Amino acid sequence: MAEKRIIGVDVGGTFMKFGLFKEDGTLLEKWQSPTDQTKPDVILQQIRQEVQKAMQTCGMSIEDTIGIGIGVPGSVDRQGIVISAPNLGWSMVNIQELAKDFFSVPVGIANDANAAALGEQFFGSGEGCDSMVFVTLGTGVGGGVVVNGRLINGAFGGAGEIGHMLMNEQETRVCTCGKCGCLEQYASARGIAKMAEKMLVSTNQKTLLRSYDVLTAKEVFDAIKAKDSFAMEIGEMFGSMLGRALSYVAAAVDPQMFVIGGGMSAAGEILLDYVEKYYRRYAFDPSKKTPFRLARLGNDAGIFGAARMIQMT
Amino acid sequence: MAEKRIIGVDVGGTFMKFGLFKEDGTLLEKWQSPTDQTKPDVILQQIRQEVQKAMQTCGMSIEDTIGIGIGVPGSVDRQGIVISAPNLGWSMVNIQELAKDFFSVPVGIANDANAAALGEQFFGSGEGCDSMVFVTLGTGVGGGVVVNGRLINGAFGGAGEIGHMLMNEQETRVCTCGKCGCLEQYASARGIAKMAEKMLVSTNQKTLLRSYDVLTAKEVFDAIKAKDSFAMEIGEMFGSMLGRALSYVAAAVDPQMFVIGGGMSAAGEILLDYVEKYYRRYAFDPSKKTPFRLARLGNDAGIFGAARMIQMT
Repeated sequence: MAEKRIIGVDVGGTFMKFGLFKEDGTLLEKWQSPTDQTKPDVILQQIRQEVQKAMQTCGMSIEDTIGIGIGVPGSVDRQGIVISAPNLGWSMVNIQELAKDFFSVPVGIANDANAAALGEQFFGSGEGCDSMVFVTLGTGVGGGVVVNGRLINGAFGGAGEIGHMLMNEQETRVCTCGKCGCLEQYASARGIAKMAEKMLVSTNQKTLLRSYDVLTAKEVFDAIKAKDSFAMEIGEMFGSMLGRALSYVAAAVDPQMFVIGGGMSAAGEILLDYVEKYYRRYAFDPSKKTPFRLARLGNDAGIFGAARMIQMT
Repeated sequence: MAEKRIIGVDVGGTFMKFGLFKEDGTLLEKWQSPTDQTKPDVILQQIRQEVQKAMQTCGMSIEDTIGIGIGVPGSVDRQGIVISAPNLGWSMVNIQELAKDFFSVPVGIANDANAAALGEQFFGSGEGCDSMVFVTLGTGVGGGVVVNGRLINGAFGGAGEIGHMLMNEQETRVCTCGKCGCLEQYASARGIAKMAEKMLVSTNQKTLLRSYDVLTAKEVFDAIKAKDSFAMEIGEMFGSMLGRALSYVAAAVDPQMFVIGGGMSAAGEILLDYVEKYYRRYAFDPSKKTPFRLARLGNDAGIFGAARMIQMT
């Protein structure tokens, strides 16, 4: 029997990323394509065209794939229904049902951060672990939980949605979700920049951060590396919020490992230092020593995880 | 082939509870026996005697069981090692290895609250659910997490250990674990009594609770039912702490249902009202409507869950 292929897709509001994999999960080729329109059937149509083209290039057809795994930026319930994907304008979309008009091979679906978690667990920093919590620090804070080698999607698509854990009841700034004091407001790239801006106007303290017109998390972590004490205070705030939140996650699932990814993880080990310091202070005994690692697959985690979903079916 | 039996055991520091089950999980008989000595081999010996006696009574032998499931008050890691069980004085005990000298049938092991969770999920209030978070409110606060019909034990035996989530950094009273501000200090029977005592001396407010020499959670909930406003404040504090903690658990695993058990759950629906009020305020959208139910199996949850472990192997 001829060898088959697996397709992994990571659908974003701006770009779709594609990966062509061997059955064992070896990545053969990856590419991306702008998201023209976000209507579900238009996206499926575009995925079909992209996959067809890629398979033809290697003298194969879509039928030579075991299946197509798709990660989407939204909550996916246990039946595979996309309950809500605000960036795509989707609400209650049964993508697997729709996909039957476009593909004769199986289609898998998951939240994008959950797919990335599965990618890192099996092909990345979590290799060899059978349980792992993945945290993605970018514009927002997302996450994914893998237990016994399987992704937990959650009954209502909310598993791993750690960004909106309400961490500070005294907060007056409003989060994108409407609550005040969510983890995302302290631990995302945008959150860190906003914390820094707020603190800058409230003090005269000397800091490297005053020299920038526009502050991002990168400047804050660069200043931390330069031992800027103002920036280091922000680092402590970030670490205490994320460390405490992850101690709560450990109380629920007690993973073998935490893996931190997303754009902000480019800051490197210093970021883990802040999180681990507080995590170990807050965590209960059995989970106190859980190791933390930086993610390894970068932006490819999503397509790897989408492919892994298919491998597992 | 003759029908087989399953044995479920719930080991406590004072009593061991036993259940004799049919293969389909029907409870045929239950009994208990005082825990004479807590040394692992003495306990296994005692379990063998009890099981032998019960099986003989129905004209069968231990070999006519599919297996023996055991719940213990301690943390059990993913290899089935009891890492620590303070009430039994156990540390790093490989009970399954030891059990080979006592039983020729398979022996399953889990943390007692986790076993109870599995019992409630399959035979109790969670019947029909494939994911559930169980919370037990007694002297302490324990819990168990079931996902895809399977118990999450955790990599280091800490899954479902929600009692020591650090909920209040301003707390000065010290928890049994050495930290200050754990969930258990506000949501356990002992915690509620202590909160009430502390509040009683700090105010002159009129309350039914002043009429008792010794306060327990029962008096507090009775006073709440009598619309005692002082007691109702304690109810709010209890609800806000447990509701917020469970919103964090939902961010990790997003269960289909929360089930609240343990001695304190005898207070009834009023207890759920306080928890749900705050849970729904704190939880993120996908998990905001997760239903809450009272546990149904009472003190039998542990033996049912221990039997379920064997059913699943």
